[in-house]
This record gives sequence, structure tokens and C-alpha cells, in this order.
Amino acid sequence: MSRTYEPAARVSAEALSTFMRQALARCEVDGATCEAVADALVTASRMGTDSHGLRLLPHYVNAVQGGRIRPQADMRFTRRLAGTGYLDAGDGFGHRAGYVAIDHAIALADEVGIGAVAVGRSSHFGAAGCYALAAARRGYVGLATCTADALVSLHHGQGPFHGTNPIAFAAPVPDQPPYLLDMATSAIPWNRVQQYAAIGRELPPNVVVDAAGRLTTDASRAASLLPLGGADFGFKGAGLAGMAEVLSATLTGMVHGFRLLPMSGDDMSTPRGVGHFFLVMRPDAFVEREIFDRGMLDYLEDLRTQPALEGEEVLAPGDREWRCQAHRDKEGIPLDPANVAAYAELAERLSIPALI
Amino acid sequence: MSRTYEPAARVSAEALSTFMRQALARCEVDGATCEAVADALVTASRMGTDSHGLRLLPHYVNAVQGGRIRPQADMRFTRRLAGTGYLDAGDGFGHRAGYVAIDHAIALADEVGIGAVAVGRSSHFGAAGCYALAAARRGYVGLATCTADALVSLHHGQGPFHGTNPIAFAAPVPDQPPYLLDMATSAIPWNRVQQYAAIGRELPPNVVVDAAGRLTTDASRAASLLPLGGADFGFKGAGLAGMAEVLSATLTGMVHGFRLLPMSGDDMSTPRGVGHFFLVMRPDAFVEREIFDRGMLDYLEDLRTQPALEGEEVLAPGDREWRCQAHRDKEGIPLDPANVAAYAELAERLSIPALI
Repeated sequence: MSRTYEPAARVSAEALSTFMRQALARCEVDGATCEAVADALVTASRMGTDSHGLRLLPHYVNAVQGGRIRPQADMRFTRRLAGTGYLDAGDGFGHRAGYVAIDHAIALADEVGIGAVAVGRSSHFGAAGCYALAAARRGYVGLATCTADALVSLHHGQGPFHGTNPIAFAAPVPDQPPYLLDMATSAIPWNRVQQYAAIGRELPPNVVVDAAGRLTTDASRAASLLPLGGADFGFKGAGLAGMAEVLSATLTGMVHGFRLLPMSGDDMSTPRGVGHFFLVMRPDAFVEREIFDRGMLDYLEDLRTQPALEGEEVLAPGDREWRCQAHRDKEGIPLDPANVAAYAELAERLSIPALI
Repeated sequence: MSRTYEPAARVSAEALSTFMRQALARCEVDGATCEAVADALVTASRMGTDSHGLRLLPHYVNAVQGGRIRPQADMRFTRRLAGTGYLDAGDGFGHRAGYVAIDHAIALADEVGIGAVAVGRSSHFGAAGCYALAAARRGYVGLATCTADALVSLHHGQGPFHGTNPIAFAAPVPDQPPYLLDMATSAIPWNRVQQYAAIGRELPPNVVVDAAGRLTTDASRAASLLPLGGADFGFKGAGLAGMAEVLSATLTGMVHGFRLLPMSGDDMSTPRGVGHFFLVMRPDAFVEREIFDRGMLDYLEDLRTQPALEGEEVLAPGDREWRCQAHRDKEGIPLDPANVAAYAELAERLSIPALI
């Protein structure tokens, strides 16, 4: 989501990317991985999702310096059958694993129409949408899911069990940015709870529970997120989280989210063994490309011209993000005072030129 | 959902299936299709989903007698690439198309590890879960999606745009029934609105809107369902509905839900051109089968042993349905007075032996 604070600074996507690559290179991260991490984080921040963008860099520096993430991982791809493969990410960066896996899935899809790659021994990969988007930008339908450590209750459960287990889906649209859905299977992300707690703002109803599993709107009492659908229909959100879990943990041979080391835990030296799943399809492996293209255009035109509620707009998934991206490409990517301080500290610690 | 009324009658799954096959055969429906429709409807009713089970038979009889659905459709499968195919369902029954498509997807997956089949020129296929389940019962991971006529608002939209566009996902579990998620991408189904309106019961908040797009809990004023996530987070449900739409309509070359003839409309003679999408994966095309099996067992054991809210239970997707199935297999499938009357009328009209 685009934020509304008055930024402490603004930087260009290029400057941000350069800083990120320099910071990671100082941690002995190999060149291709520096590029992948910077690409994923800058993509997310340009679209307004800073929680999965620029705010993550200090965390990744700690994780690679602590030994949790290997700076120069040996990523080994095994094609198991003509349409499937497994990428052992060697405890390296999830972003590099994600882009490598999508490249392999595209190569499989080129040959047999569809390709799926399960990724094991990986780490946090930022925003799932980056990888679905990478497929759509090249003309394919893309799907990405990931498991994450426990933050979300089960339906009728007391405490956290699933991660926010995202599902990202992207499809190409002629002469337009792709259709892009990138959603956590909880109603809201955990960082929103933290932000609201910090400023004492009340949460909407039906999105978090306290330590006893009771509904609360007091962010400072939140102990677990509810799955999408809330207290009444959370079996749907929990079922979707489970689908992401089966694809990203079970099908990759990794532990599921409930057993995963916490991302924000103190242990920065033990690899977490995160799993991801990626699926790519060639539209023309099903129907003629012209028919698919026309269908996407018709669907989106009908969608965007639906009557909206007063004062609101009807948008397709991704529209808000593309709008934010256009704005940030022009005005720069905003940093709040905490970001500015964190980036200054990083520059000093790593002896690289300051971002601002 | 299992219903709580005192049933007017109970019938065995076998008796129900026999009646359905006889009724359809009287409408010149071919044998394989009679069997597919009965299988899908009885599967849904055994699991408690009568709205997608026994209640649909009278509708299908009207649709095939009116000419909307062809009784003996020529279903043509084209393998387009090694992992993908297209099934032209020839305006026949969606249930037959669904099972045929899953068979083809399994054959593709056997060869290349993954198989996807887009289905066009089809019709209503009952419960999406039937087809994902058919894959899981044979040891594969299965996904099924479908488009449907407009009943669900867009996020911030006034009136219906998407169908209830279901997403069904199933995965095999050793010595247990499969993991089975079968969800509409709206919070509640339309038939629940109709039931509540009929008995004057108030709906939960945040699931329907009136003709002006305003939230209401009065079922008799409901003009459109809200997407999963309700007024606050419905962009997620609408995005998932869109994913189902892209897969089931765009990738099949069919019209999307907003342009689809209504299922319950007066026109029973024009084929609707419904699209479906099916995906099947071999677990051992990604990891060793033992690892996958152990992962499913560990995940479900952890899930089912989570502390529940007082008076509630924590269930895996499908658990409620398997419990209902066991109960109904023992006690019989219940029919309410309206079902009894509808089935008596069918028996008389088609000159077949009465069900009860």
C-alpha cells in the first residue's frame, strides 16, 4: 500500500538499487544474487510495498552476516520430468532462487506448455508477486507461493499456525501492465499490526486475536492474525494458506510454517529451509494467443468500467501498484525517518557511499 | 454444509445414483455422461453440499430437455503440447467434461510430471471439489477452477460482476481421506441468501449488499454477494475470483462470467459456453514420494492438534465433509420436503420408478 506520511527523503529506483547491490557485495554476496535481491526489493518499493521492499535490506544484511543466508550459494537445478524440476537453493537468497526458478519454469513451459519448479533450502524471497510478474512480463501466466513462519491462526484456533503464506498470480495483457494479484492469505499483514500498535491506532474488526484467541481491535494486544475471511469465514483463508503450504513446503520437502524458525527471531546463524513453488504456463499451449489476448482485454475493460461506490474506484489487481510505480518513478521512492536512519547506519557499517 | 432440519426422507447413495442415472437416461443422455453427472452429484451430497448435489438434478433435466445442454455431446480432446491440452466439451454436461479432463491431465502428468487441461463449450459442473478429489484419490495433487455467471461484486463495485468462481485444491494423504479445499471466492453462496430470505433470518454482517451497493444483513434486500474479505478486504476475494476467471474463461477462449448467460435464467435452450480449468501434478515429479507423504502427515497432525477456541474444533479442509460423508453413508442422505416433491415430480414426468 502507498503510504501517506511526508517522506524524510526520496531516492530514485536506480540509486536505491545501486546502494543495495553495494551493501550486499560488501557482505561477499555474489554479483548475480546482489542483482536479484536489488531487483526484487526495488520492484516491490516502486509498487508501494515497502514492507517487502526497501525496509528489508537491513534484515538481509544481518541474515547474511550472521550466516543464516549463504552469500554465494550453489543453487542446483534438477529437471525431474519434462515439465517439472527441483531447485536446491543451497541456503542462499530466496530472491535469486525465485528468479532462477522462474527462468527454469519458463524453459519447461516453452517445451511442454507448462512448467513447475519446487524450491527447497531457500530463504525469505521478498514479495511473491515479483516472480509471477517476471513470468507475465515475458508473456506467460505465472503463479508463486511461499511458506512463512507462524503468524496466522487456523479457523477456530487459538494461536498462530500458518505463515501469511502468499499467493501471487500474474497474467500478461497486450499493451498494458500485467494482471497482478499478490496477496497474503491473512486479512492484513503483521507489519500493519506493528505500525498501528506504534501509533496507538485501532485496527478494523475481525482481523486479529489476542493471546487467548479472542477478537480484538487493539493492535498492542494482537497475538495472532486471523486468516482471510475473519472469525466467520476464516476457513477459506486458512484453506488457501494450506494450499500454499502443501505446494511450498510439502512438495519441496521442507518443514511447514509452524515448524519454521521465525524470520525475525534472534537466531541469525541457522538456515531456515524455506520452500517456494512456481508455476508457469504458455497461454498458446491452451488457446490461440490472439484469443487469450482479446479475452484479457475484454475482461479488464468490463471490470474497470463497472459502476463504483460513491467516492471509490473499481480497480483490477495491480492497478493501484502500477499507479504508485508511475508516481514513484517520477517523484522518487519515499523513505521515512526510520528508513533514513537505517540506511545511514548500513552505509557507515559497510563503508559504502551513503544513499542520501 | 451439513444441514440441521429434520429430513422428510433419507435415501442411500446407491438409490440416489440409480435414480439420477435413470432420469438422465430418459432425457437421451449417454451412459458415460449419466454416470459422471450422478457421480458428481452424489459425491457432493454425501459430503453435505446438497446445493451442488441432489438439488441440481431437476435443473439439469430442464437444461437438457430445453436444449441448453446436449445429451450426447461429442467431447474432443486436443493435446496441444506435452503437458497441456484443450477439451471442447461440445455443449455437453460439465461433469462429464470435468472427469474426462482430469483423466487427460493425469495422463499428461504421468508423462511429464504435470498436466493442465482447459475446457471450453461446457456447462455447469456441480462442485469443483469433485474433480480435484478425483485426482487426489489417484495419488495426484489436483486443482480445479470454474467461471460462473455474475453474482459477486468487485471490491468497491456496486453490483455483481464475477461469478462465485470456485477454487478447489486437493492433495493425497497416506491412509487418510485427501486434503480437500473447495471454496467459492465469495464469503457465502447465493443459495444461503435465498434460504435466509425464505425464513426471514438475518445474514452475518459484511457478506451482501443491496441494489445500491450498500451493506445489508437483510437477505431479502440482497442484490449482490461481496467477495471473500467483505467490504474491507474484498480486493483479495475479487482477485482470487479474477484468477479463476483468467484460468477458466480467458485461457479457454470462453466469455468471462459477466457476459455469461445466467444459470437460473429463463433461456434453457441456448448453450452457455462455460469454461473450466484443471491442473494435476505428480508429487514424485518434485520430491521423493515418501518425503511428500511424510510432509502431509506431519502438517495435518500439527494442524489438527492445535488448541481450539472453547466449544470449537480445529479441522483441516475436508474434515467436516468426510465426517458428514461417513454419517450419511450410514444414515442415508437426507431430503427436505421440497426435494421430496421435486423428485416425485421428476419420477412422474419421466416415467421412472420413484426415489422414495
